[in-house]
Amino acid sequence: MTTATQPQPRSLDDLVTSIEPLDRDAMDRAGQRLDRLTKPPGSLGRLETLAIQLAGIRGELVTAIERPAIAVFAGDHGITRQGVSPYPSEVTRQMVANFASGGAAINVLARAAGADLVVVDVGVAGDPLAPAVLAAGTRFVDARVAAGTRDCSQAPAMTEGEALAAIEAGRRIVGELDERGCDLLGVGEMGIGNTTASSAIVAALTGRPAIEVTGRGTGLDDEGVRHKAAVIDAALARHAPDPRRPLQVLTAVGGLEIAALVGAILAAASARIPVVLDGFITGAAALVASGLAPGFAPRLIASHRSSEPGHGIVLEALSLDPILDLGLRLGEGSGAALAIPVVAAAAAIVGGMATFEDAGVTDRA
Amino acid sequence: MTTATQPQPRSLDDLVTSIEPLDRDAMDRAGQRLDRLTKPPGSLGRLETLAIQLAGIRGELVTAIERPAIAVFAGDHGITRQGVSPYPSEVTRQMVANFASGGAAINVLARAAGADLVVVDVGVAGDPLAPAVLAAGTRFVDARVAAGTRDCSQAPAMTEGEALAAIEAGRRIVGELDERGCDLLGVGEMGIGNTTASSAIVAALTGRPAIEVTGRGTGLDDEGVRHKAAVIDAALARHAPDPRRPLQVLTAVGGLEIAALVGAILAAASARIPVVLDGFITGAAALVASGLAPGFAPRLIASHRSSEPGHGIVLEALSLDPILDLGLRLGEGSGAALAIPVVAAAAAIVGGMATFEDAGVTDRA
Repeated sequence: MTTATQPQPRSLDDLVTSIEPLDRDAMDRAGQRLDRLTKPPGSLGRLETLAIQLAGIRGELVTAIERPAIAVFAGDHGITRQGVSPYPSEVTRQMVANFASGGAAINVLARAAGADLVVVDVGVAGDPLAPAVLAAGTRFVDARVAAGTRDCSQAPAMTEGEALAAIEAGRRIVGELDERGCDLLGVGEMGIGNTTASSAIVAALTGRPAIEVTGRGTGLDDEGVRHKAAVIDAALARHAPDPRRPLQVLTAVGGLEIAALVGAILAAASARIPVVLDGFITGAAALVASGLAPGFAPRLIASHRSSEPGHGIVLEALSLDPILDLGLRLGEGSGAALAIPVVAAAAAIVGGMATFEDAGVTDRA
Repeated sequence: MTTATQPQPRSLDDLVTSIEPLDRDAMDRAGQRLDRLTKPPGSLGRLETLAIQLAGIRGELVTAIERPAIAVFAGDHGITRQGVSPYPSEVTRQMVANFASGGAAINVLARAAGADLVVVDVGVAGDPLAPAVLAAGTRFVDARVAAGTRDCSQAPAMTEGEALAAIEAGRRIVGELDERGCDLLGVGEMGIGNTTASSAIVAALTGRPAIEVTGRGTGLDDEGVRHKAAVIDAALARHAPDPRRPLQVLTAVGGLEIAALVGAILAAASARIPVVLDGFITGAAALVASGLAPGFAPRLIASHRSSEPGHGIVLEALSLDPILDLGLRLGEGSGAALAIPVVAAAAAIVGGMATFEDAGVTDRA
């Protein structure tokens, strides 16, 4: 991993330094509790390690998840001018409207997970969005920083001021969710072109060649993937961002919604809210966050392994083991939504099961 | 796979022949619907293949799962006298009482999945159970065939009459669930010693050496696993059941709860109710069912890959790809309960998402 050596604004420094290590005492207590419950020790596998992780994150036994939320950040990408996606840029805007009116996969999956959904426009191209209809359980927030990024093959994607403003937007959203009692945060995104930005970020931060971290996105063919990797190589050659300066990498080749994700993830970590990442793009944001706040990744939960090849590299760099492997490659927070019930089940086990003593069940010799 | 060449009672024959192949038309319609929804084609991965499978099983587009249920069958095993489990046989009875009163993992996980729970005593040792208290959403059924099986290292575990009566008990339970509108059935089990019975079944039906399909169960050490495999080898040598006669295999080395699972699985297949298997023991039952009704396995959904080594062999024999891989080894239906929300999400996607036309989203060129 990289280390933050870039001078950072005071507020970002404060946020980063406010993140605490996991609470080992609470984790020990969770482990002891799990071993007294009516089941062979360890027999619930990942549910048990999740229950222990939740205790470490919250600093206490977590016996239920009561207010899960999913925050989806949207932004557009100037790099789409270089033909890196089979869908036109206007689809970002159309899909944000679809999120607002309740017709997208993330609406269905958030509802199924019992999670509130907040859709945040950080930088969708065109005029500000003003959804006329909002689906039940869905909130829309205008937190626009700019009408999309610049084409990073020609210029830095953002100014540092824009990147910081987008980080602050993500932080603000999580602050509001925290005030509403959110106790588990799934994160997602929408932005045609954002697998390109994410591949560029991951290549820059890990030193991997672009072609190794570049995939089909929403459905490129082999030739399309090669072109996309070449565009990323050219952008990285132009900006030569310093991997020890994650904010510089983010500014040069990132995206407004990715910057907002960085702020949201760090803010949730600071507020002891467990973060359920989605796939590759949220993973790239977590990698930037981890560059800014080394060692904070144990506060993250990887929901799934996406079919984007760069995602495996991100998971490895963050030492995260995904809960699900369902061949998902949609984004929007869809994988996070599917993993939330598993995380909630881990908490419910701690809160709801009887002990051997309570149930009068004979423990092993 | 084996083929049923053993003469079977008429009622079992009728059940087996009533199982239809998947409805290809309904599957095609589900695939076409999925491709019109606002997402890149195939981007929801396993959710999409599950949605197509559900359509094939039900014979129509499945747009919601409304009445999921989990049936847990319990029975005791004479083979426990040979020291094959770290827990004493009495734990079966204690855990059934724990299921009834709501303190077990399956209670917590069934509730989290929104599933009704029915706990069925098919052959628990001792007097009939009469739970004084029943947890909300939980039903207890006395369907006792015998007070446990015989020690199959000394005698056949069951008579054929007992095996058939237990199959019939499973069938009856599913008939009742079907009448109540159950549209997704998770199956589970409880029975100290039943990984031993399952390993013996799987070894007999697949021809694999016992040591390859024998695992730690609730927590044996290496020496315990070797002893368990030796006990299985001895039992199989004594009975030499014919792998082409799955009912003979079941009778010789199986269990009452495993026989009930066979009946439940076949009855659900016949009633077009999708079956979510749990782990190794329900898998062994499905392997017996597949021997009786060759080709019916596409009506099954594998919830997870258990850490029992024999489970991978069962999944391969049935060509099933598990949804989850969470290192579970509890049984009870716990893995099935965790997978039910994923299956329900697959149906909800078909029922709840907007199409490109409806949402005014531009499809790819």
